[in-house]
Amino acid sequence: MSRRILKVAAAQVGAIDRQTPKQDVVTRLIRLLHAAAEQRVQLVVFPECTLTTFFPRHLFTSQEELDTFFEHGDVTASPDVEPLFHEARAHGIDITLGYAERTPAGTGYNTSVYYSAREARVLSKYRKVHLPGTEEPFEDPQAPSASRPPPRRRQAATATDGERTTGRGDPIMGLMICNDRRWPEAWRQYGLQGAELLMCGYNTGGNMAHLWGSKPMSPEEAQREALFHSRLVQQANSYMNACFSISSARCGLDDGRYDLIGGSAIVSPEGHVVAEAKTTEDELVVAEIDLAECRQGKEKTFDFDRHRRIEAYGLINTQTGVVEPPLL
Amino acid sequence: MSRRILKVAAAQVGAIDRQTPKQDVVTRLIRLLHAAAEQRVQLVVFPECTLTTFFPRHLFTSQEELDTFFEHGDVTASPDVEPLFHEARAHGIDITLGYAERTPAGTGYNTSVYYSAREARVLSKYRKVHLPGTEEPFEDPQAPSASRPPPRRRQAATATDGERTTGRGDPIMGLMICNDRRWPEAWRQYGLQGAELLMCGYNTGGNMAHLWGSKPMSPEEAQREALFHSRLVQQANSYMNACFSISSARCGLDDGRYDLIGGSAIVSPEGHVVAEAKTTEDELVVAEIDLAECRQGKEKTFDFDRHRRIEAYGLINTQTGVVEPPLL
Repeated sequence: MSRRILKVAAAQVGAIDRQTPKQDVVTRLIRLLHAAAEQRVQLVVFPECTLTTFFPRHLFTSQEELDTFFEHGDVTASPDVEPLFHEARAHGIDITLGYAERTPAGTGYNTSVYYSAREARVLSKYRKVHLPGTEEPFEDPQAPSASRPPPRRRQAATATDGERTTGRGDPIMGLMICNDRRWPEAWRQYGLQGAELLMCGYNTGGNMAHLWGSKPMSPEEAQREALFHSRLVQQANSYMNACFSISSARCGLDDGRYDLIGGSAIVSPEGHVVAEAKTTEDELVVAEIDLAECRQGKEKTFDFDRHRRIEAYGLINTQTGVVEPPLL
Repeated sequence: MSRRILKVAAAQVGAIDRQTPKQDVVTRLIRLLHAAAEQRVQLVVFPECTLTTFFPRHLFTSQEELDTFFEHGDVTASPDVEPLFHEARAHGIDITLGYAERTPAGTGYNTSVYYSAREARVLSKYRKVHLPGTEEPFEDPQAPSASRPPPRRRQAATATDGERTTGRGDPIMGLMICNDRRWPEAWRQYGLQGAELLMCGYNTGGNMAHLWGSKPMSPEEAQREALFHSRLVQQANSYMNACFSISSARCGLDDGRYDLIGGSAIVSPEGHVVAEAKTTEDELVVAEIDLAECRQGKEKTFDFDRHRRIEAYGLINTQTGVVEPPLL
């Protein structure tokens, strides 16, 4: 079995405050990219909404301030962000970058792009599909607010945008954003396109189980629970779809108080953690992966064509919510 | 939040040899049932194909011998097995039982029934959906052979048979068998019917990664790997569907040589192991569970009606195998 080696990294990004300028963040991202270049990394995955604090946690009264968190138009041409893409080209490193996008029509999206250094262009743009809106108080970082970039409605973008790039052994890749990773359908939709590598940035509150849990829980327990769930879904879905995955966290204490978990990780098609973050700060998590390791799962245990039983999956894409099961 | 307590058990069953009579096995099952009664357990989950050795691993030359492994007609009236149902009624314990079924037309199925002690009847019969046939040598316990009870073809039975029983707090329950648990669609199909408790018996070879793995692996490593995968899919799918699950192993060394993993476990809707087997022998794994704990997941993180995006799931039940993704 011929090897298909790729050196990849999750570029975890620590605390960013509400007032932190984008230029300062981009300087940090470039520092991570340079560390990747020193290790001859070929692909760097940056987190969800990498360029600013996770601003949807706030309620804004100033439209002017709110606007500063969005990218308008081509993100690769944005004066604040362009230096990152310049460095990616200079070092021949592909990157994925998550950011808040506002379209000319004024619609906000939670977006991630795959940028090819060799082709010097965005190969794919993905918009978050599973939006975790709740009715919780807006101080919960995952709660909706007037400023939430992805409004709670059906978006045009879907998880069907499985990516295929032409370089580096031609891996079949796909992008997910944050909450998407908890939904097996998001992974399967890519798995059914033969995905070998899925990349997912996230901002995940360390306090969710603390706020929501059915059992009383200390903030420390809640943080462990959030990390446990994040890791569990990454490992199991990588295994069940026989693909590598890279998850990359925006983490740490924004403004010294909003707690986001770390836990960035590179996971194998057998569901094992290959490399993981040790901090909740800026940190590069690197691994050399062999895409040929996907074949075992794709050709045996999870040979979809032999084993999937679509006639038994009728509810999955015909029914959004719970149906009443037939009484016996 | 009012509690909905249920005391449940996985009745793990150790080695059964090719020559072991069914009556001997049923005696062991009744012993496990009595242990459950002493602990006031209300529901006992027995494994897949509980009544005999996992005979599909063998190639039979004698049709007469092969026939002995199957149940013909109503399993609750089978002279060998009826005593188990009698004891279930006597102690007021519901049971699920996996067995090899042969229909009057001669078709073989890998079947599991849910038997209500109070109603003194089978409430539901489930036939395995995901059959793990391979081209491996038949000595692999998961490989097909002329004797395999569920032939490799589309079966009439599907995972859509979500169960609802009327007793004990009215839990919404469903049955799965072995390899079904590795397929997120099997869980989701139940999740979409509001399942609060899924029950899965299995016979899982401890040598599969050893035989199949892309990396060289000792038998001990392979066994750990098989246990890891079994546990991983149970934990993650319980979490992603906000349901309890009970997995029950037929395990140990059949005929002193065919290695099956143990690892029977009861898992919570948050994906945590509540109780687990410590041996690979006959062992009762007991837990008192509160079905109300499903509500947190079903009403928040995994509120399907709010968060599922079926317009993005188009491939999942229209496409069995891998499609070519669009080139960028």
